[in-house]
Amino acid sequence: MKRLPMNKQPCPIARSLDIFGEWWSLIILRECFSGVTRFDDFQKTLGISKNTLTARLNKMVERGILKRVPIAPGALREHYKLTEMGKELHTVFIALRQWGDKWTFEGETPPNAVVERKSGRVVAPVVVRSLSGRVLKPRDTMLVKL
Amino acid sequence: MKRLPMNKQPCPIARSLDIFGEWWSLIILRECFSGVTRFDDFQKTLGISKNTLTARLNKMVERGILKRVPIAPGALREHYKLTEMGKELHTVFIALRQWGDKWTFEGETPPNAVVERKSGRVVAPVVVRSLSGRVLKPRDTMLVKL
Repeated sequence: MKRLPMNKQPCPIARSLDIFGEWWSLIILRECFSGVTRFDDFQKTLGISKNTLTARLNKMVERGILKRVPIAPGALREHYKLTEMGKELHTVFIALRQWGDKWTFEGETPPNAVVERKSGRVVAPVVVRSLSGRVLKPRDTMLVKL
Repeated sequence: MKRLPMNKQPCPIARSLDIFGEWWSLIILRECFSGVTRFDDFQKTLGISKNTLTARLNKMVERGILKRVPIAPGALREHYKLTEMGKELHTVFIALRQWGDKWTFEGETPPNAVVERKSGRVVAPVVVRSLSGRVLKPRDTMLVKL
């Protein structure tokens, strides 16, 4: 993964991508949000090599978005769960999925929909809002130095 | 960029990443949302090689998230603007930026804030909501086949 020159201002987007921005990491996280937790299940579902899977999981554990926990109380075998830090990527993934559903299927029906578990109804499109709840378009927002 | 095996179900996240998932593409898009449009400005701001910048811009134009437009009516020189498809990545970028601000600065103050242009007030945290407006956590949502 390439990095911005060290003299550039630190950027939350560059820092985030440095944690989980590799293609396979993003795809593994997608599976985590679908409830996959076990090494073997990631491997079977994704057809990823064991070496690559191990490297990506280790990095995400090290950087704090996944944690290893025993598969049952007292068990020796462990599986992978999202930490609070990892769970908060939910919004990014839902927004990315909605964008992909809208723009990358060109007339085909997307294979899946994200629904509210309780009601089975599709979730609302994720949007940027002001503190008072107004929907904000790109031209309505700007970046300011702190 | 690695791909999922062809026999795997098409996925909006994999398809999206295939369009703009390379590290430099994401960083270029970040600059687009900050109003950068000219080749030379991307180059100067990012310290990226001309070859890489050209390749990334060409791909994003080809895949429909950027467009080349004359820098002034009738001018021969062109610059790069987000298409409607590109602009709709705004939500993904704001969500990613907010996550990075919260989780990757460990006590330091993040360098920038996203504010509403009109009021100068910081924007609300991007969240996933039900159609009726309820905030949904990862455990409140699920993926269903269409």
